[in-house]
Amino acid sequence: MSKKVLIIGGVATGGKAAARIVRRDPEAEVTIIEKGNIISYGACGLPYFISDVVKDHRELMSTPIGVIRDENFFKNVKGVTVYTKTRAEEIDREKKLVKTKHTETGAIKEFSYDKLVLAVGGSPVVPPLKGINLNNIYQLKTIEDGIALKNYLQSRKTTKAVIVGAGLIGMEMAEALNLLGAEVTVIEMLGWILPTILDKDLGLIVGRYLQGKGITVRTSEKVLRFEGDRQGAVKKVVTEKGQIGADVVLLSIGVRPNVELARKAGLAIGETGAIAVNEFLQTSDPDIYAGGDCVENTHRLSGKKVYTPLGSTANKHGRIIADQITGGGPSFPGVLGTAICKVLDFNVAKTGLSETEAISQGIDIETILCPGQDRPHYYPGNATIIIKLVAEKKTHRLLGAQIVGPGDVSKRLDIVVTALSFGSTIEGLATLDLAYAPPFSSAMDAIITAAHVMENKLNGLAKSLSPLAVQEKMARDDDFILLDVRSLPEYEAIRIQDPKVRLSPLGKLRGDYKNLPRDKEIITFCKVSLRGYEAQRILEAQGFKNVKFIDGGIVSWPFETIGKVWR
Amino acid sequence: MSKKVLIIGGVATGGKAAARIVRRDPEAEVTIIEKGNIISYGACGLPYFISDVVKDHRELMSTPIGVIRDENFFKNVKGVTVYTKTRAEEIDREKKLVKTKHTETGAIKEFSYDKLVLAVGGSPVVPPLKGINLNNIYQLKTIEDGIALKNYLQSRKTTKAVIVGAGLIGMEMAEALNLLGAEVTVIEMLGWILPTILDKDLGLIVGRYLQGKGITVRTSEKVLRFEGDRQGAVKKVVTEKGQIGADVVLLSIGVRPNVELARKAGLAIGETGAIAVNEFLQTSDPDIYAGGDCVENTHRLSGKKVYTPLGSTANKHGRIIADQITGGGPSFPGVLGTAICKVLDFNVAKTGLSETEAISQGIDIETILCPGQDRPHYYPGNATIIIKLVAEKKTHRLLGAQIVGPGDVSKRLDIVVTALSFGSTIEGLATLDLAYAPPFSSAMDAIITAAHVMENKLNGLAKSLSPLAVQEKMARDDDFILLDVRSLPEYEAIRIQDPKVRLSPLGKLRGDYKNLPRDKEIITFCKVSLRGYEAQRILEAQGFKNVKFIDGGIVSWPFETIGKVWR
Repeated sequence: MSKKVLIIGGVATGGKAAARIVRRDPEAEVTIIEKGNIISYGACGLPYFISDVVKDHRELMSTPIGVIRDENFFKNVKGVTVYTKTRAEEIDREKKLVKTKHTETGAIKEFSYDKLVLAVGGSPVVPPLKGINLNNIYQLKTIEDGIALKNYLQSRKTTKAVIVGAGLIGMEMAEALNLLGAEVTVIEMLGWILPTILDKDLGLIVGRYLQGKGITVRTSEKVLRFEGDRQGAVKKVVTEKGQIGADVVLLSIGVRPNVELARKAGLAIGETGAIAVNEFLQTSDPDIYAGGDCVENTHRLSGKKVYTPLGSTANKHGRIIADQITGGGPSFPGVLGTAICKVLDFNVAKTGLSETEAISQGIDIETILCPGQDRPHYYPGNATIIIKLVAEKKTHRLLGAQIVGPGDVSKRLDIVVTALSFGSTIEGLATLDLAYAPPFSSAMDAIITAAHVMENKLNGLAKSLSPLAVQEKMARDDDFILLDVRSLPEYEAIRIQDPKVRLSPLGKLRGDYKNLPRDKEIITFCKVSLRGYEAQRILEAQGFKNVKFIDGGIVSWPFETIGKVWR
Repeated sequence: MSKKVLIIGGVATGGKAAARIVRRDPEAEVTIIEKGNIISYGACGLPYFISDVVKDHRELMSTPIGVIRDENFFKNVKGVTVYTKTRAEEIDREKKLVKTKHTETGAIKEFSYDKLVLAVGGSPVVPPLKGINLNNIYQLKTIEDGIALKNYLQSRKTTKAVIVGAGLIGMEMAEALNLLGAEVTVIEMLGWILPTILDKDLGLIVGRYLQGKGITVRTSEKVLRFEGDRQGAVKKVVTEKGQIGADVVLLSIGVRPNVELARKAGLAIGETGAIAVNEFLQTSDPDIYAGGDCVENTHRLSGKKVYTPLGSTANKHGRIIADQITGGGPSFPGVLGTAICKVLDFNVAKTGLSETEAISQGIDIETILCPGQDRPHYYPGNATIIIKLVAEKKTHRLLGAQIVGPGDVSKRLDIVVTALSFGSTIEGLATLDLAYAPPFSSAMDAIITAAHVMENKLNGLAKSLSPLAVQEKMARDDDFILLDVRSLPEYEAIRIQDPKVRLSPLGKLRGDYKNLPRDKEIITFCKVSLRGYEAQRILEAQGFKNVKFIDGGIVSWPFETIGKVWR
């Protein structure tokens, strides 16, 4: 007897699960019901469609060889039946039936199942603010949203665009709107850009970069309401701190799992508010699986439940579910909270635990900031990345990384993802036999250098302070010397303006140290703090007792400088 | 009492060890003696200097901020004394003395040591062939070699260049000479390009790509002698198969460790012919360490000794040695035989065991070929990579990867490097929470898809034949159908020309299968063999018993096609 599999939702998890179920069990009768008009599209590509980097929205809906993944495609190629514009209204778990309603005709139809898959996704959070229903306030969820917003933007010469929420989608849209020529303001309630991805230090760096690109970044600022004109179009965003003119507003304050259907059916909802599933993506009803943006995940490091909606995870879920329905397969080991985005020429990524997260979990940690080049300095096109690593002090276990900058961030991040997945220590990371040739990396890859810096710090050889700690000391007016050990031309190009700063190029420090007071705290720095570290060791060798360097040097300094670090 | 550390060789291992010894132990008295004129240069950058991608050779000798790493730099910045043009002649292990001779003046000088570091590198192999001493026959080892070759090439309008040996340096130089406008011929004694890096299938693919770029590739061809003109300049390379006109010849048939000094001193030489060291880079004399291109390494997977000279390994060695000399530190876990190079728009990389190596070690393996895009097909600039994975059949343990193509090869390879270092299975690779956003990867990254294909093959779901096996069957004229399941436009653009080929687009196969004979073997394929695999499953579901697909589809087909796969 053939097995009836019903899948609710046909974007990522649903399509993947359906295709694999049929490949694994040709006898299975697989049906997808989808409330939207279209299925199996690359929702993550929407910002690139809006910025016109992707010209035609159909590219997001087609296979690599240009075939649209519509009902016919699923029928003929995959052997899967698809009903679009069909909303699931209710699950009858007793009778194993799903009641649906056609979104246009209102027609009711029932589907029976042996196994049911919930792939119902998530929805953008819409804050209950006054004026939220004004025209030209957009969210970004469906291709239709994207087309509407792009049409609006392309029909105007200049646009004041306000993005509410500086998360991943907010940042991708800041890029898109900037590329389309809009005057972009980003408003974030928390203290810095990408606050759930980055710690404050790197968040401030990315924020400064965006400001330099003409994007206005307003952090620690809460939106109160929207005001419109007589035609009902938004004109103003009013916050606690002021008001910002706006022709268009994009809301990107987060995504919430669609759990109504599951909740109504009595399925267990997890502590994060998403559908609870086990490691086989099975809900509290063994005949119902769920995956993608509607479920919660287990963090591979902390073991905690997390809500991390992502297209990559959704696809993996689909495959695991298909295996389970057709005879079994591997379990899903969970996620690391990996995230990446591109904002203009800056790449920003994170995996594992941030400093903030590790501390909040009570782990005794060490952190480092290590800027480096993604390829040798002599190889054309080489670019900077700043690596932050988090490790457990006692065990030297690697806990997480955040990497930002114009260089190749994603390779180094994925190396860390892989190392974290296998419980690597810092020493394990430092001795990887990574691929080396000048077009791809330095002889010591930047991630290996970062691991070395962490080793030096964990072993007490390198003594450093974070930029935030140094800035606090400056703000408190502590008595110390800020020893810039770079060359004079470097100093003239970019410098920290503060009376505590003293220039003493490293090449002369072995002679010049005699002019430094032995009773004062000395904090050294250079461009990336390799020379800062050398200076610390040179001074310590001369008997200085209180020397530290600034993590990551002036490249990682997230505050004002004379001269621009990022162009 | 201060410790005297003497380092012989100042290119990679030597400079790194010296700098770190002084940072770890400021009391140490560290001296480098180097037979060449210059120290601490990026030898791996030479091909890029020759191709003029790097304009000035001094960039290879300077720090990222442009300071030349010469004797003064080492003295003032690192606190290390350097003697250049000073060749070590003999080690007296009893007296702990090294006797040296100045390469210009011939002056003899003795250096005493408490700890000695051999960082004497390797030398290009020079075959004992007739005519080998003719002018314009180059090797690539020192910056002086590079300057001489570049000057020669830039002084001529057109040049016939012959490269002997299609290894890493040979390939990098094929690019360099091609970019400089030379007419390039590569001669390789073994059966394909990069024979110690790639298995035959991928080696043939890279060879076809190079041929398409106008580089003549002659494999399975042995050079017999060189012939010159009256001025003593090379004019001809004579092989077993013919003769090739040559204005300039580059020898790149391998590197051999410099072991004479160590051998004379009675230090143990390993089975590979390089200096034997333990996991702390200590030679058979506990007061003598050795690292870099003069020592052998342990392969992390096979446990065997291997000779894998590489700048990245040399730098890691330097650090381990410095730690050992100054109080201890982590051991060196060995290498994976990772290698990467760029040849024009193709990136080529390998790590772990190749198919050939795994079989020669008696491991029962499975392999797959999986072409994919490095980013979503809709994202501009996305490019193809072909991934070959090797895994152990019984345990599903990942054993190695080779990746080639114009796309981002290095990221996927480094993910595999990291996974291999921790003993990952294929399932472990498939479930990594890699960083996903369209500018960086597809929702299912190409390496994850490759792992899935391997899983399907290991579990018996996907049944396939390698391109080489299919070609053998074609050559034997076995009776089978080669079922091309692509679309007609795809078929018209590129196809395999053979009477066995039958076109049956996948979208129609669920109807058309009735026209296929049930008693014949059917071998399906498409562009990358996702559809080929679907076709196999569809036909099996219809009761066909003998269906397989070609690993990697037409993109991985290393033989003749009508229409070009690579442009």
